[in-house]
Amino acid sequence: MAAGLIHSHMAIQYSDPLDRTFHALGDGTRRKMIAMLAAKGTLSASELRQPFDVAQPTISKHIGTLEAAGLVTRQIEGRVHRFSLKAETLKSAEDWIGDHRAFWEGTLDRLEAFVTCEEGFE
Amino acid sequence: MAAGLIHSHMAIQYSDPLDRTFHALGDGTRRKMIAMLAAKGTLSASELRQPFDVAQPTISKHIGTLEAAGLVTRQIEGRVHRFSLKAETLKSAEDWIGDHRAFWEGTLDRLEAFVTCEEGFE
Repeated sequence: MAAGLIHSHMAIQYSDPLDRTFHALGDGTRRKMIAMLAAKGTLSASELRQPFDVAQPTISKHIGTLEAAGLVTRQIEGRVHRFSLKAETLKSAEDWIGDHRAFWEGTLDRLEAFVTCEEGFE
Repeated sequence: MAAGLIHSHMAIQYSDPLDRTFHALGDGTRRKMIAMLAAKGTLSASELRQPFDVAQPTISKHIGTLEAAGLVTRQIEGRVHRFSLKAETLKSAEDWIGDHRAFWEGTLDRLEAFVTCEEGFE
């Protein structure tokens, strides 16, 4: 039981920045928060919480995951915490996918060229 | 202790396809497998395992995660299982990020337009 409690409070440690980024993106609530920040620019913690029917600690945990992944930055103005997106991190994830999609599209192009070439010999 | 064992053998269930995709991408071994498949097109299970110093069940679990996410498809030819990438799934993840990066770039453009406009009044 004690072990279970420890486990449930332990954040998973990721050594690689892309592990953290993709892990953070793998949750619908966090993706919605990213979409809100992308649309609005900057939001306070209470504005970020507003659309979700979940407790404040849950939202704080999601924000923490987004911050740890470098997807979100926090500015503290007096008692108000304001959050905004860090687009470089989103871009690094998009770039990783894009790099490998290029290979696949290249494969398709080569296949198409081969088929065209074969047709030329008929 | 029993609870711990059950937990460690339970696959996390994701209701949303993008949750599964980003979760699958959040691991360096799985990303390397995707890169290998992107470069080579199709690989057998033993070819996929070759660069990794881990046990077969670990590799099988990673392949299962990639299949469950719809990132990888399996073709069975006799006793040989061949794996290839499903680029649509990679594309859906890239598209999700791209959609929201567009907002951010729009914000930057608007900021730039505002600064240019302000400068015009000096």
